[in-house]
This record gives sequence, C-alpha cells and structure tokens, in this order.
Amino acid sequence: MLLLLHRPVVLGLRQACRLRSTPSRLCIGACSTNDSRQPQHPSPSFSGDYSSTRGWKAMGTLIGLGAVLAYHDHRCRAAQESPRMYTKEEVSSHSSPETGIWVTLGSEVFDVTEFVDLHPGGPSKLLLAAGGPLEPFWALYAVHNQPHVHELLTKYKIGELNPEDNVSPTLETSDPYADDPKRHPALKVNSQCPFNAEPPPELLTENYITPNPIFFTRNHLPVPNLDPDTYRLHVAGAPGYQSLCLSLDDLYKFPKHEITVTLQCAGNRRSEMTQIKEVKGLEWRMGAISTARWAGTRLCDVLAQAGHQLSDTEAQVCFEGLDSDPTGTAYGASIPLARALDPEAEVLLAYEMNGQPLPRDHGFPVRVVVPGVVGARHVKWLGRVSVEAEESYSHWQRRDYKGFCPSVDWDTVDFDSAPSIQELPVQSAITEPRDGETIESGDVTVKGYAWSGGGRAVIRVDVSLDGGLTWQAAELDGEEQRPRKAWAWRLWRLQAPVPAGQKELNIICKAVDDSYNVQPDTVAPIWNLRGVLSNAWHRIHVHVVP
Amino acid sequence: MLLLLHRPVVLGLRQACRLRSTPSRLCIGACSTNDSRQPQHPSPSFSGDYSSTRGWKAMGTLIGLGAVLAYHDHRCRAAQESPRMYTKEEVSSHSSPETGIWVTLGSEVFDVTEFVDLHPGGPSKLLLAAGGPLEPFWALYAVHNQPHVHELLTKYKIGELNPEDNVSPTLETSDPYADDPKRHPALKVNSQCPFNAEPPPELLTENYITPNPIFFTRNHLPVPNLDPDTYRLHVAGAPGYQSLCLSLDDLYKFPKHEITVTLQCAGNRRSEMTQIKEVKGLEWRMGAISTARWAGTRLCDVLAQAGHQLSDTEAQVCFEGLDSDPTGTAYGASIPLARALDPEAEVLLAYEMNGQPLPRDHGFPVRVVVPGVVGARHVKWLGRVSVEAEESYSHWQRRDYKGFCPSVDWDTVDFDSAPSIQELPVQSAITEPRDGETIESGDVTVKGYAWSGGGRAVIRVDVSLDGGLTWQAAELDGEEQRPRKAWAWRLWRLQAPVPAGQKELNIICKAVDDSYNVQPDTVAPIWNLRGVLSNAWHRIHVHVVP
Repeated sequence: MLLLLHRPVVLGLRQACRLRSTPSRLCIGACSTNDSRQPQHPSPSFSGDYSSTRGWKAMGTLIGLGAVLAYHDHRCRAAQESPRMYTKEEVSSHSSPETGIWVTLGSEVFDVTEFVDLHPGGPSKLLLAAGGPLEPFWALYAVHNQPHVHELLTKYKIGELNPEDNVSPTLETSDPYADDPKRHPALKVNSQCPFNAEPPPELLTENYITPNPIFFTRNHLPVPNLDPDTYRLHVAGAPGYQSLCLSLDDLYKFPKHEITVTLQCAGNRRSEMTQIKEVKGLEWRMGAISTARWAGTRLCDVLAQAGHQLSDTEAQVCFEGLDSDPTGTAYGASIPLARALDPEAEVLLAYEMNGQPLPRDHGFPVRVVVPGVVGARHVKWLGRVSVEAEESYSHWQRRDYKGFCPSVDWDTVDFDSAPSIQELPVQSAITEPRDGETIESGDVTVKGYAWSGGGRAVIRVDVSLDGGLTWQAAELDGEEQRPRKAWAWRLWRLQAPVPAGQKELNIICKAVDDSYNVQPDTVAPIWNLRGVLSNAWHRIHVHVVP
Repeated sequence: MLLLLHRPVVLGLRQACRLRSTPSRLCIGACSTNDSRQPQHPSPSFSGDYSSTRGWKAMGTLIGLGAVLAYHDHRCRAAQESPRMYTKEEVSSHSSPETGIWVTLGSEVFDVTEFVDLHPGGPSKLLLAAGGPLEPFWALYAVHNQPHVHELLTKYKIGELNPEDNVSPTLETSDPYADDPKRHPALKVNSQCPFNAEPPPELLTENYITPNPIFFTRNHLPVPNLDPDTYRLHVAGAPGYQSLCLSLDDLYKFPKHEITVTLQCAGNRRSEMTQIKEVKGLEWRMGAISTARWAGTRLCDVLAQAGHQLSDTEAQVCFEGLDSDPTGTAYGASIPLARALDPEAEVLLAYEMNGQPLPRDHGFPVRVVVPGVVGARHVKWLGRVSVEAEESYSHWQRRDYKGFCPSVDWDTVDFDSAPSIQELPVQSAITEPRDGETIESGDVTVKGYAWSGGGRAVIRVDVSLDGGLTWQAAELDGEEQRPRKAWAWRLWRLQAPVPAGQKELNIICKAVDDSYNVQPDTVAPIWNLRGVLSNAWHRIHVHVVP
C-alpha cells in the first residue's frame, strides 16, 4: 500500500498535537521519542516508496498517537469485549463506504470505515483490501509490519473470523519479492523491498560508464520475471491505424540506435534535504545517478509505425510497466509527445545496457530511456505505450515527483499546482575525498560528477577549498557531449595544493551548464516535502594531517 | 575603439603595481585615488561597450600609471625635445608592425608601435587607425576624450605634421551619433553613445507587453538610418543554390509569423555584480529586459528557400548588422543552424514590434528575434545571413558575452575556453517596492518579473519577507506559456501582511523554471569579469512606517 501521508490524518494529528500546546513540528519529535520500541537504525525490511525509514517511523508513531487521542469510538471499546464471530462472506460483503469497510488480519476482523480517509497511503489504496485480508498488501509494503501499526489496527477490531474461514491466505501472502534478482554486494541498500540501492561514491566515478552490477537501482514494485520469448509490447495505434503487438524480434527489426545516457533519480541527494527538515522518501545519498550505453529502437520509429504524428502539442505518450502490485496496478509515467516524436530527443525503447541484455533490475527485456529526463519516466519492463490527451494518471506522474515551495507541507500541498518533473536541473557532487575523511597535506585531489537535464552540457565545475570564498575551475574528464544532446555526465577532478597551515578544508563543488544555469548555494531554500531536486552546492568537510 | 582590457597591459600593470608592494586589486583603488581629476559621478559622455564608466576610469588611470612606471623609453624623452616635422604621406607609410605604427591627433604625430599590444580595446582595433588620424575613432568611442588618455599618448609623441598637412579631418570627425533617433525621456540612460537605456522599474512591469518607446535599448554602434525602399537582406545560398537578395516586399511574401518574446541583455542586473567587485560593462540595473509581440518571416522559411538544410549539427547561422564603425566593421553574431532551421524554435526575421514597424532603435527595418536566447544574438538592422562551419568571428560572439569562474580575471581569461552565451538561465527581479523605500504597515504588495531561457516556462516564484528564512509562492500573472516555447516572461505579485512589529523587511524573490532550475542564492559565487549572467536572488530592503 502506498504510504503517502494523507492530508486528513495530518490535520487530525495536528489538532491532537495542538491539544498538547506544542507546535506541530516539535510534536513530531516528541511523539517519536514516545515510541521507544522503534529501532534506531534503518530497518532492512523498510519498503515504503513514499517514506524514508525515519520519516515513516515518525509518521507511523504519529498515526498511532493521533488515533489514540482523536478516536475513542465505540469500536475500540467493543473490541475489548468478548469477540463476535464473522464468516468470510460477511467480511467480503463489507467492501464499500456504503456497507462499511472491513478487513482481516489473521483471524481478526476490523471495521476500518472511519480510518480509510486517514490512511497514509491514501483511501484508494486501503480500499483495494476492502472485504478481504490485509496480508497480501502488507507483504508488499513491509513497513506495515511494525508494532505501532498493529496497535493502531486493534482500535478498529470488531470480532474474529469463524474458525473454518480462518485459512491462512497462503498464495497471497507469499513474498512478492522472493523472485527478485540477486544484487551486487557493493551496492548501498536504501530499501530492500522494493529494492533501491546506490553504488558507493568510491565506485561511482571510477568509470565513466557505470558497470551494470553497480548501476543505481530504483524499483517501485517487485521485479517481474519476464520470458523474452513470450514478451510483447503493446503500442496503441493512432485513429485509423492498427495497434502494434511487438515481440522482441519485431523490435530488433527497427534500426538499432545507441547512445550514452546518464539516469538520475529525482531523489538523488535527498539525505541532504533530510538534514534540514524531515522529508518523505528514500535516503539517497549522492549515488542515485549512473551512466550507461543504451541500445534499442527509437520510440519515434515505433510511434510512426503506429500512425502517430504531432498534431496536438500538449499530447502525451504514456508508458505502463509490467511490474505491478497485487491489485494489478502497474507502474506508469508519461512524457510529452513532442519529445517522443523528436528524433533529436533520441528517446529509446532500450533492450541493451552496456552491450548486454538489460539486467532484470533495469527493465529486462525492454525499458524506456528518455535522455535528459528524470529517471522516473524511464519506465522499466515496458508493457504498453499509448498516446493520450493528458499525462499518465499514474500516482507517480501526478502525485509524486513534483517540486514545491519550501513552505508547502502535507497540510497545504496541491499536487495539481506543480508540473511533473521532466528535465532535471544542473547537478554535481564530490565523490572523493569522502566527507569527514582525513587527508594528507600537500596536494589534494577532488573528484566528482556533473550533469544537467534536457541535453544541456556541463561547461564548467567550480571547486572551492575554503567554504566558497574562492573558486577554481576543475578539469572536465569523460566524453565531450554533442550540442543540445549532452545526455551524459562529465566526470571532473581538481588537483590543488592544500593551503599551508590548514587543519581542515570545507570543499564545495558547483556546476554550470550551457544555458549557464547554476546550482543554488544552499539546501534550505529548495527544500520540499518530497525531498526531490536536491541540487544545492555539494559540500564536504575534511581534516588535514598536520 | 573597443575597450577590452587586454591581457599584456594588465600584466604590465600588475608588475608595476607589485613594485609598489601592494596586491593588484588593492592597487586599483590606490591608483584610482591617485587621479583626482576624474569626476566622481558617471559621465553621460561615457560610451564604452566594454566598460562601466567607473571600470574604464580605473582602467584608464591604471594604463596611465602603468605606462609611466613600465615604459620610460626613448620616445618619451624624444617628445620633449624640439619637434620633428612629418608629412601626411610619411605618417601613412607607417601602418604596420614592420614599418612601425604611427597615428595623428590634431597636428601631433605619435609612434604607438609599442603601445599596440597594450591597447585596452585590443591591437586589432588600434591598427585600424594606423597611418592616419585618431579623431574618427575617438568620435565613436568618446571615452578616449579624457585627460589621462591624452597624457598617455604624449609619451609616444615623435613630432608634428607639416602645417600644410594639418587639415582637420572634418568628415571623419563628424559625430556618428548625430543621426540617432530621439528617445523617450522615461528611459534611464546607461550610455548615450552608443545609446543604452532601460525603463525604470515602476514602468517595467506595468504592462505585460512593454510599450515600444520604453523597451530597453542595447546598441553597440550608431543607429543606421535605412531606407525601406532600398533595403535588401542578403542570404548566402547553400552549395548549388543561388543567394537571395530580399527586399522588404519579398520578406512580406513569406508567411507572417507572430510571437510574444522577452528579450534580455546578458548584462541585466550587472550593477549587483559591480557591488561585489569591479566588472567591465554597462551598469544595467534590473531593466535590461522587456517583452514585445514580434511579427515577421520565419528564418527557417528563408533558409529553406536558399537551400539550407541540417547536415552538420555544428553549423552556425551568422548574422551581420548594417550598423558599423568607421572602418566598416559591422555588429555580428551567430546561432546554431539546428535552432535556426527548427520551426519549433520560431526564430524570426522580425519587421514588426507590437503591431508597428520596428522602431529605429530596435532594428528598423528588420532584426533577428531568437526566442529564449540572449539579446546579443537578436541582430538588429540585419544586412546579411550566411551559414558557416563555425561561429561568427565577430568580437561580440567570441570575445564577449561568455561566463567564467569567479577567479578568472583579465590576466587569466581565455575566451576560447567558454561557450558563447545562447540560452539564458532562470531570472527574476522585484520591481515594486523599490529598494530603500518606506512602506506602510498592514499589507505589502511585492511585484516583479520572472523569465527563463530556452523556452523553459517559469512555474513558480518564491518570495521571502524575512531575508530568506521563510518563503511564499507568488501569484503568476501574464500569459500562460506554451510547453517548450515559453518565450515570454511571467509577471508576478504577492500580497502579504507585514509581520507585526517589523521595522524593516528584507524582501527576496527567486524563480523556478520547468526544468526546476533555480536562481543561486548570492552574487559573489557567480561573479565574472564581464558582469554577465547576474541572476542571483533579487534582494531589496524596505523600511516600515511604525
């Protein structure tokens, strides 16, 4: 289930918190410390797409406390009396707001009608489980398996299942991630289920082309295991044209196009935003970015064969993945048709990554690659392509991956007010030395990466060793990029003497792209509730051996 | 003559300054104060394209002092003896480095061979006057008419012209700006000759479309007075195609295309960079930006008729203006052929501005309009278009309008190391209230503009009333922009209560474009020696009536 912190729950919690006469932000801390059972380290079982481990813990705790404070209804008391027994059929007849919404967990039955609107993942996601067991959904998002969530649920208990109906839903509760591929041990895991991991900085800029096994992985759902022989890509035809149903062999028959493209997650460097104020999302450090040589069929060729041409400049190409949750909701995203049809934009239906078939974690057998655009639109395990008047209705297109003013919080956010992220802003980070490292005096070598969205080339990286007072231009390594098609990053390095007598250095990098856009100086003014678009100057602090 | 501070002269000066044991930057101040004859206020006769009034004064003073310190050659002493007489022919035979380079001013003759490399405008510009009178050039760039320049020249005097040759060069010294058009008195003039002026902030955002008479004016040379009946645009043909020679009527026969486009000078808001450290350039405040409705012929249509198509993606379209200096050197610039041929880029050969024929100051009868691109490429009084393998060799393309690391100075600058500015970065500024104004308590209304280059739409403007601690999103006014073709600015406003008890407000604005690029927080880290690309947060300080 999706773990969006839904507005009413926060309102309720805020009200609850106000009763305690503390400002809401302070309250979060206060509530968290109240729940001493939570482990202090990120849990490997964390699996929320919409929540950092810490964020979710605070949120979950809030939910528990808020519910306790705000909902002392009769059901809570009823649950403490001798349990009433229900059949499976009775439960399943309660699956809408009109009939009431019941769910089961193990042998227990809960009426969650009044909780639906408070569900952090949104009402629609909870409704998917209405009238049946929670287990298949909680298996998908393991974050639910925490004591405070169980405690919260207890408030809504109305009875138990008849013993004959209390059959463990074996099939549904089987681990949907059990078939996920094996991963490289060097990856730094931010979330195991779904799998999200980044290469360590030491390896990240070791190669201009990131080796497949350590390419950062951003999964929203379990990895499908697709048979290349039976794989088909469905492409909806334009009016008057037949839809296409393409096998891999069909795709291979189009001209093969090959390009080097850097992919970056919108949440790259989110951990720096978290230091300013809590955000919801995976705690990416600087490694949610990697570069590969992609080969495949140009999307514009496939769209042309299905009869699509540019008529309405607002039209969108919608992509649907073959990864899905237990209800069949697939990952989805869209890009403007104008970009999709522009041969110069080089949008690919990629079937090769660095000369190999796509690894399963990266979309085997076919994924979209949209050069210069945020990773979230590079839909993996591609199943369906269609041209629509509007953007994809996917949660990930419309209710996520958008930027807001720092003052916007979950009480006030209006997702329709911001455009979905497509091109990303200019970015750079230091991969060497590491933050906190102790370096020798003499010369210091500073290394890192820089990239910008939209095909804009990085033209310069400035490095400061004194916290931003003075700057030196770094040497740009890596491939020269083509004009307007600078899809890949530049690696960079600066070798400079450590100023004599310095005991520590505050090292900063900032990049400039060929539209002369620059990175902002600081994080706080670009902070946003989802922690995306974190592209302030990258700063590290190192000690110098005397 | 162009007033670029040439590298050797600075090196010479630095050496001279080091003799005085002061760091070079401090030396500038020391040298400046040494020349007490310089007026302390900007002079209306200032006319340097490449220098702020203050910058040039400091530089000129440096040249004088540096020359005194570094060049005690025999010619200086020779000039103090009884003058030797020369014929005009003798002078004109000294017009190359091989023969020596002589020039005259009035009746005096100077051997400037050794000064050529030190000329702030570059050797090539001084060589244009070799063997003849300086007057026609000094008339064009009135900045030469200052005591310290005359004093410097005296060091190179070698004699006088024969009385019969000492004829005032009447024709050449006539004021080349005498025929410039009349201007609107509301314009704030930064330089009279060539004319450079901006609308005052109060008027700038009064209208979404800037009225022609107050549209900011950026001229590099005198305004040509062209006859629309005899006007011809020359378009070089592709191999195998005839070149075109188009009258205005010929241009009118192409389909007429109309778009709203904001033009911004690369030097807009330079005055804020000057506050960090001296730069060379006109002291633009926030008004070197304006918006008009342009109509004309699409460049891609004209290029197609001349047989041009996209083969080499590096190819450039070069533009030449009909404005020129006395030697016939015309203003020039170029843009990539890929942009010029892209119908979606909507590059215009404009002949109408807000429904009127172009005003003379804005390029009558035809100028280029390159949506989303820096003003310097929108060549006015367009005379010639050609497709070349490389960028325009114009000074303004290759030796100006480029950005550098803050550490790069005139000693170290390598103009070839940076790309010419084409698309501009995201920008915004506050036009109301004025900096330093006193406002009433109660509500404050903050107004301004925001724009980004490359067709990227402004999606949000954040405003802070407390120096950047908290932010509120402003309301965006003005026309909604088309996707990928947001060529025009958005005006914006925020009405908000003045926090109770505040005696002053530090108001800031910052914009976000649809690639989620943002403005940098501060000016110093984007400072560059030409003072271009000044797009840090705009900050004003106001007092509140108690």
